Amino acid sequence: MTSAEHGSAQPGGHGASLPGAVDAGSPAAVDAGLLGGVRSGAATSDVAVLQALLDAEAALIVALAETGLAPATAVSDVAAAARADRFDVISIADRARSSGNPVVPLVADLTASVPERSVDFVHRGATSQDIVDTGLMLVAARVLGPMLADLDRLAARLAVLASEHRGTVMVARTLTQHAVPTTFGLKVAGWRALTLDARDRLAGVAVGLPVQLGGAGGTLAAYGDNGRRMIAAFARATGLAEPDLPWHTLRTPIADLAGALAFTAGALGKLAADVLVLARTEIGEVSEDGGGGSSAMPHKANPVRATLVAAAARQAPALAATLLGAVVAEDERPAGAWHAEWEPLRDLLRLVGGATSTAPELVDGLVVDPDRMRANLDRTAGAIMSEKAVVQLTGELGARAARSRVDQAVRRSAADGIGLRAALGMDFDDRPETYLGSAAALVDAALRRTAE
Amino acid sequence: MTSAEHGSAQPGGHGASLPGAVDAGSPAAVDAGLLGGVRSGAATSDVAVLQALLDAEAALIVALAETGLAPATAVSDVAAAARADRFDVISIADRARSSGNPVVPLVADLTASVPERSVDFVHRGATSQDIVDTGLMLVAARVLGPMLADLDRLAARLAVLASEHRGTVMVARTLTQHAVPTTFGLKVAGWRALTLDARDRLAGVAVGLPVQLGGAGGTLAAYGDNGRRMIAAFARATGLAEPDLPWHTLRTPIADLAGALAFTAGALGKLAADVLVLARTEIGEVSEDGGGGSSAMPHKANPVRATLVAAAARQAPALAATLLGAVVAEDERPAGAWHAEWEPLRDLLRLVGGATSTAPELVDGLVVDPDRMRANLDRTAGAIMSEKAVVQLTGELGARAARSRVDQAVRRSAADGIGLRAALGMDFDDRPETYLGSAAALVDAALRRTAE
Amino acid sequence: MTSAEHGSAQPGGHGASLPGAVDAGSPAAVDAGLLGGVRSGAATSDVAVLQALLDAEAALIVALAETGLAPATAVSDVAAAARADRFDVISIADRARSSGNPVVPLVADLTASVPERSVDFVHRGATSQDIVDTGLMLVAARVLGPMLADLDRLAARLAVLASEHRGTVMVARTLTQHAVPTTFGLKVAGWRALTLDARDRLAGVAVGLPVQLGGAGGTLAAYGDNGRRMIAAFARATGLAEPDLPWHTLRTPIADLAGALAFTAGALGKLAADVLVLARTEIGEVSEDGGGGSSAMPHKANPVRATLVAAAARQAPALAATLLGAVVAEDERPAGAWHAEWEPLRDLLRLVGGATSTAPELVDGLVVDPDRMRANLDRTAGAIMSEKAVVQLTGELGARAARSRVDQAVRRSAADGIGLRAALGMDFDDRPETYLGSAAALVDAALRRTAE
Amino acid sequence: MTSAEHGSAQPGGHGASLPGAVDAGSPAAVDAGLLGGVRSGAATSDVAVLQALLDAEAALIVALAETGLAPATAVSDVAAAARADRFDVISIADRARSSGNPVVPLVADLTASVPERSVDFVHRGATSQDIVDTGLMLVAARVLGPMLADLDRLAARLAVLASEHRGTVMVARTLTQHAVPTTFGLKVAGWRALTLDARDRLAGVAVGLPVQLGGAGGTLAAYGDNGRRMIAAFARATGLAEPDLPWHTLRTPIADLAGALAFTAGALGKLAADVLVLARTEIGEVSEDGGGGSSAMPHKANPVRATLVAAAARQAPALAATLLGAVVAEDERPAGAWHAEWEPLRDLLRLVGGATSTAPELVDGLVVDPDRMRANLDRTAGAIMSEKAVVQLTGELGARAARSRVDQAVRRSAADGIGLRAALGMDFDDRPETYLGSAAALVDAALRRTAE
Repeated sequence: MTSAEHGSAQPGGHGASLPGAVDAGSPAAVDAGLLGGVRSGAATSDVAVLQALLDAEAALIVALAETGLAPATAVSDVAAAARADRFDVISIADRARSSGNPVVPLVADLTASVPERSVDFVHRGATSQDIVDTGLMLVAARVLGPMLADLDRLAARLAVLASEHRGTVMVARTLTQHAVPTTFGLKVAGWRALTLDARDRLAGVAVGLPVQLGGAGGTLAAYGDNGRRMIAAFARATGLAEPDLPWHTLRTPIADLAGALAFTAGALGKLAADVLVLARTEIGEVSEDGGGGSSAMPHKANPVRATLVAAAARQAPALAATLLGAVVAEDERPAGAWHAEWEPLRDLLRLVGGATSTAPELVDGLVVDPDRMRANLDRTAGAIMSEKAVVQLTGELGARAARSRVDQAVRRSAADGIGLRAALGMDFDDRPETYLGSAAALVDAALRRTAE
Repeated sequence: MTSAEHGSAQPGGHGASLPGAVDAGSPAAVDAGLLGGVRSGAATSDVAVLQALLDAEAALIVALAETGLAPATAVSDVAAAARADRFDVISIADRARSSGNPVVPLVADLTASVPERSVDFVHRGATSQDIVDTGLMLVAARVLGPMLADLDRLAARLAVLASEHRGTVMVARTLTQHAVPTTFGLKVAGWRALTLDARDRLAGVAVGLPVQLGGAGGTLAAYGDNGRRMIAAFARATGLAEPDLPWHTLRTPIADLAGALAFTAGALGKLAADVLVLARTEIGEVSEDGGGGSSAMPHKANPVRATLVAAAARQAPALAATLLGAVVAEDERPAGAWHAEWEPLRDLLRLVGGATSTAPELVDGLVVDPDRMRANLDRTAGAIMSEKAVVQLTGELGARAARSRVDQAVRRSAADGIGLRAALGMDFDDRPETYLGSAAALVDAALRRTAE
Repeated sequence: MTSAEHGSAQPGGHGASLPGAVDAGSPAAVDAGLLGGVRSGAATSDVAVLQALLDAEAALIVALAETGLAPATAVSDVAAAARADRFDVISIADRARSSGNPVVPLVADLTASVPERSVDFVHRGATSQDIVDTGLMLVAARVLGPMLADLDRLAARLAVLASEHRGTVMVARTLTQHAVPTTFGLKVAGWRALTLDARDRLAGVAVGLPVQLGGAGGTLAAYGDNGRRMIAAFARATGLAEPDLPWHTLRTPIADLAGALAFTAGALGKLAADVLVLARTEIGEVSEDGGGGSSAMPHKANPVRATLVAAAARQAPALAATLLGAVVAEDERPAGAWHAEWEPLRDLLRLVGGATSTAPELVDGLVVDPDRMRANLDRTAGAIMSEKAVVQLTGELGARAARSRVDQAVRRSAADGIGLRAALGMDFDDRPETYLGSAAALVDAALRRTAE
Repeated sequence: MTSAEHGSAQPGGHGASLPGAVDAGSPAAVDAGLLGGVRSGAATSDVAVLQALLDAEAALIVALAETGLAPATAVSDVAAAARADRFDVISIADRARSSGNPVVPLVADLTASVPERSVDFVHRGATSQDIVDTGLMLVAARVLGPMLADLDRLAARLAVLASEHRGTVMVARTLTQHAVPTTFGLKVAGWRALTLDARDRLAGVAVGLPVQLGGAGGTLAAYGDNGRRMIAAFARATGLAEPDLPWHTLRTPIADLAGALAFTAGALGKLAADVLVLARTEIGEVSEDGGGGSSAMPHKANPVRATLVAAAARQAPALAATLLGAVVAEDERPAGAWHAEWEPLRDLLRLVGGATSTAPELVDGLVVDPDRMRANLDRTAGAIMSEKAVVQLTGELGARAARSRVDQAVRRSAADGIGLRAALGMDFDDRPETYLGSAAALVDAALRRTAE
């Protein structure tokens, strides 16, 4: 492509009336979530990350003071200075490119904003990775709290829904086809089980999010003999867990987060996938109250919340893969693997935070239509009861003959347009509620489970 | 984790001095690129995307007018209104969540900002996906232009570098070990070949980026018989290519972009990976001029640009995988697969835009040390010439005996601390420059290639 | 878990009656495709790969002879020996683990099986990667041929199907909901367009699959001045393309394959996804002739072919991501990145080969039910025509008033159980075939396209 | 590409002497591990999977008998028949394609091989997914046992190695550059920590691998009221865990496996990555005893084991991503998501099984060279001690002045070719062992950790 051809994609292609592309480097280079869909917002923004980095620097001074390596005045000086709204996040972001990480310019600006008496203590003995890793763990902790609360809320709502529909009979669908009867309660109990699975995994990760402190090479050498005491004090000051070892290149915490977050996205994605099937116009068993409208079609009520949760679930696994791949981190600080974690981790927190906050809304606004469920059961003229017929006949005829007879009846039913019961020509109770097996017992058992 | 435990990760964990997490929904929920590393900036920002969406709406009116479906006044009215700085991007982002995409609120705001005489023509006959897809293609086109220029610049610089070092002998390394001699020129010619491969693939994609127009269900029904004329006119108005069919769920353009962008990231990642090896302190054959400093260690000069390019290359494949997965888009508009494209596509454009702009800087600032290359060749006391010895002896002894004799000599050389030549005890020119094979001819041939 | 606990998962857990796990290392360690689903078979088997490696070795001798570096007797000796059925693939696989690749033991066995006069010429001047890369390109070429033929067959069948159903009206579905009318012909034309897109991309890759020859360090040093002549001769002997440079760590061919194959999987996956929706019991617009039966449910006819194609499409993107990631290959041969390509590339060829061979069967066996399509159009009592009503009224009332009036009618239609036409209370032709826009013209245009 | 061009990639391209591609469908379509690299073998072969499926069928009869639904004779009849060597795995694999899974043909063959008195009980009440899922959990359990033992062995060996080298001083490298001194013991303690992290995660998953039993729609309807009793009995008979609910579309067990396995690959990949750096010819601090030889270069000893482990680590994340994506499983059995799990799960088990068995060999054969570690420390003329100098001077001069003075000294040291100590011109102990901080204490603390 010549540059002239390419230029035609510029607004000038249809006259001088449209503005050109935004200048690189301008303050306009900020993201507001326009393409975010389900993504959660401010808690993972650049300003929130900046504050977390500053919180890490402030906590470091607390730890230094506790260990006798800094005076109390430094603690209050740095705490007073470490407020994100006093820093120019765009400038720091720009300068981060030449140092390879945002801590180098941040420390410069923070140092410049504390009284002279305290400058010597800012960032003392730490390396940039100590602050970035600790900051991102703080962001994760702050996001995981609301996520867990959302999942608790979701599980509670699903428990009520499962109980309400413990006896609501509907079609079980396998490989897109009607299979046998089941209950909506059992389906919802499954959604709840996944929600609790996700909650347990995220809670397990949340409680262990570790502080990072290792210094330049992971030996904490700048603290002399006080290295391990500094880790403990830093952990207390941040509220994060105390690791056995600096984990600059032992990335278990990142991998654990990746796995738990991607699973959570998938768990909610399963719920969304089921809603999207059941909400299809032809199926119509559920709908979203106040579904999204269309700019063109007055009659549409789209399952928007389910769509957004489904979209999040589609993006999470690949982000997790990038993070799992970054476990392979050579040396005492890798040239690339660490840097490749930052955005995928933040994106994953955002997507899953968005999904966990949207899912309870989705369930709260779910309109369930038991009549449609019943009507759909009746669509196949009893064929959905064919397995029951085989089971019933097996005692009498043996399995193969029973199957053969029901196969014939199914064909005759379809060919002659009569119901399976008539085609079988025998005493056969073809009401779906007579073939639910352990559905109710499974719901009861599943609802006894609580979060760990 | 109890919520009390969790709370300890809040800043309050070390006193009341640190601010809490940023409120969700506040204007602070913007990204400035703090964690972006190598990412390019404003051209893919939310404001730039917003402008591209507005450009698509403005171009639609141009096409309507050309087709006789709107008056000329509507063209100028919408063009005047369609300026991103007149819209509240954060508000649109927020409202996008309930409609499932940003076009619904955008159209509302745009309609409200044009004169009454033109309101009927805004967004006429289009569906939200027409605008989002076209807008993202415009963003891609605007980003690909500078990318291609960067790659041209990179290829030109690499051609010079390869010529300069056509005869600079260095170690070829395989599986981390010294193998045989090669030239730095040949290595650089390889970097250039990958750069041109990337350039050709991106250019091929750039020239075909299509406009999207299909209306509610892909039939362009709202335009009556003018559907195909509208597509052609819309393509002209935007400067994008005219597709055969609406591609709402025929996602070839996205997959092509994904493949070409991820390959480009990898191609530059190979260059970065080589630089990172050669820059190792023990190897020292190249360094980055003005490498990144360390907050703790005065002596360090980190290969920051190579690190950031390497980090981009690590993130690209997974984003491409998400986009490739979204090709499986059911119906006339999928519930999730489409929405899952937006952020990965933008992120991929950002990462690769950042990598293509950083790579020329990396090469411009590359300090090459032919003396170290020579010194490293000498480290193995001639063992690097062992294949040459086998080749030389094979004519005389046959392959197996030749190999056996050189094996013995290699062992003796290592055991006795003498050079391979001495251990062989024969007439053997062990200068590395005598065993470069076709290195120079390959460089010459490779440099004859130009961009397609 | 203690090993006692773990042991309970051994068959002994329920008595002595079940055999234990198969011994590692036994000949039983072979795969027959049990879990392969849609995967293609023998053409990518270990034996086929072994034959391709041997073909590469045989072609190398041809090239050596052509360049004057080997006698004609060596050509015939090696050709006679290089037959996979004369080698013990399991033994070679086992020994491959200690050398890191299968060529080292293969060359040993091949050398042992040629006459003494030719042993010196086996593998002369080549490195293991030359043979593995060339062998895998041969496997790819052999698999791509049938793939392209399958895609041609598929496109031809889809052209007929699209023509047949050029006027078959059906529901266009967006975000799972009925949107507006479309035609089945247009949907099928879209499937064909994707098929041709895939075909063009695969064909573009197939024609350029290059031979690999670089020798130990990519300089072809063992061939003296004959390096480039050897590449050309080797290319001729294999039928593969001649590369500009040895591409040991310039992995464009692999990335191109990865992108084209993953896109093909996605393109066929879109077709499968549509079939899976349309085959749902409640929708019933298509079915698979002779769908898969169920072991338990006599009435089931599962869309098995669509399911298997869909499963392939789900696996391809991640495999492509691994291959795209391997473009970042340091040095003259990377320690891991290259080795990580072999299985993902083979798996991708298998999955896509399986999908391309299954898709024509899927389409051949597709039973289309235009009556169900029509019946589904009628399910919403005319609401599917709401956009047409807005368009019709806009001329008279303006866009906003038109939309408002249709909104009211849609609500009244739903509340009162009357059709949209009645609710609108105006002259309105609500037959779906009156609102198909450019559907037929788009089909006609799309069918004019041929493979490139 | 025309088919004639394509045909040239056939062996016929260089004469009639080479055989054509293997016929699809022939017994040759088996895999022996030729491209497997580090993959483990027989325990995950098709025959092993077939045996596991048969074990599941046999265990089902045990459960039926325990629940009073089958006679004791059926247990012994099925147990006697359910031996993989009596079945034709290739035939079953072929027939699996038309039914969509291997259980349908397997049940047919198994039924045909039991006495007439027992045919009615084979597979009774189960669905294909019950058997495939249970079978794959059995395969996983059988593979995880040896994996855990390998990881235990690895951790034990690493504990010894870390103790031995608790005081072995070496360079800590960050972003490829020399940073500060550390110890090899601390590096090895980190490898051990990751090994134990992997071990704990895998063990946690292994103990909970659940049996699958839900019947056609997940209600266990064919068992009447005995559904939950059947699950419990089936769990006992297999030795697997008893799930709360059938998990046909609640894929937590698969996601947990995926996460733990991919992490394990990464954990071992970190070890391998470090070995690959340290084994570089210029660094030479470790080597693999009996490293892999080269077919061309007598002097080479490649770090083959590390390479193969690294290759496994590169493939695992994408496979995990596919499995995490399959959590989004619609309905009571999804059309594709489930089928897409089989091969990635098996591949992941293989890769990680190969990596866990190779890693102990890698460590057993690791030759550590403390003299080279010392020599490398000395390469920068003391610059590696620059942080210590800053720390020492900060008390006296303040941080900024201290840094400034050391910066000057570093520059002077480099310019004048004198050591840092001389350039500083002060009393300064520049021996690396004086600046190890908490390295020894961290090793001691880390070695106190045991497997959970």
